[in-house]
Amino acid sequence: MVILHATVEQLAEAGYGAFTIESVAARAGVAKSTIYRHWPDRIKLIIDALSSFHEQMVPGLHDATAREQVQRLVRHVARVLLDSTFAGCISALIEGAQRDPRLREFLHHYSAHRRQELVDVIAGGVRTGELPAGLDPELAAASLLGPIFYRRLMSAEPFDPDRADDLAAIVLGPPPSQRPSRSGRRRRT
Amino acid sequence: MVILHATVEQLAEAGYGAFTIESVAARAGVAKSTIYRHWPDRIKLIIDALSSFHEQMVPGLHDATAREQVQRLVRHVARVLLDSTFAGCISALIEGAQRDPRLREFLHHYSAHRRQELVDVIAGGVRTGELPAGLDPELAAASLLGPIFYRRLMSAEPFDPDRADDLAAIVLGPPPSQRPSRSGRRRRT
Repeated sequence: MVILHATVEQLAEAGYGAFTIESVAARAGVAKSTIYRHWPDRIKLIIDALSSFHEQMVPGLHDATAREQVQRLVRHVARVLLDSTFAGCISALIEGAQRDPRLREFLHHYSAHRRQELVDVIAGGVRTGELPAGLDPELAAASLLGPIFYRRLMSAEPFDPDRADDLAAIVLGPPPSQRPSRSGRRRRT
Repeated sequence: MVILHATVEQLAEAGYGAFTIESVAARAGVAKSTIYRHWPDRIKLIIDALSSFHEQMVPGLHDATAREQVQRLVRHVARVLLDSTFAGCISALIEGAQRDPRLREFLHHYSAHRRQELVDVIAGGVRTGELPAGLDPELAAASLLGPIFYRRLMSAEPFDPDRADDLAAIVLGPPPSQRPSRSGRRRRT
């Protein structure tokens, strides 16, 4: 566990290009041979380290409407990208994915797995009629997660978790209480 | 221009970590000293190279409604990210921005500059009443661009430019012709 933790810290700090098994060994205070005994190369080590941080990242979704669940998941992802071990590694992972097919496959799989809960919540909400009919769950999930990653990676201001409900209102349409009672303008927020 | 072109190609191919002035000189077939005469370091060279590719990337927006302009801009960005010199460099730029404050500032500035046209079109559409009142132009622009970058960087399938209109319908609401004439479900697409 010390080694996996050192792996993630080293990846965040040094980036993908400068990431070596040697630097992880030095950071963890273990011999290089100890690491090589379990991980044949740096890609396998990175994949194991990232996978081990996965499970701590899921908020409770009980007793909530589909919209509330979407809001919670969006707020959660925004918080994770604001400040977390994973957030520090994203740019290195993206760069590594561009260079190494195994890391690329891992990142896409990991990301699809993380996205699935949101896709399922949206699909469920469409099915029960709570969310707009015809809303494509995959496209809607990308429209909710995309802005958070975009702001984190391409802008000076990360996405503010307090705006999760506003983002949900854009993608899902306004909540019933804020809908105009007659035709005309669609949004009031 | 040969040097700037070689810079972008080298960045796309080697990534940020392995990008050196030496490798650009070799690719361009010029002496290292020729490059150093104009660019004191690799960051300045990268910034100049990216800036020079900027202007070719803007579609015509004349004679179009705000929604049509949004659709064109979204489709254009989707095409650029699908296959362009810039697309090949994004992961290297993101990684470089994480490592170097000057590259970070450039990327954020460049990205804000590229986003501005979309923000202005949305703001204009809200002002004339064509787009929903209360739609936040900055948040809407991030909701339109974010999914395209997210799909390019974090998933196995890049965003399909043919779905630009669907994405615009999610963020701007459905076009008038597809709105239900009475209350009830908001989307039909």
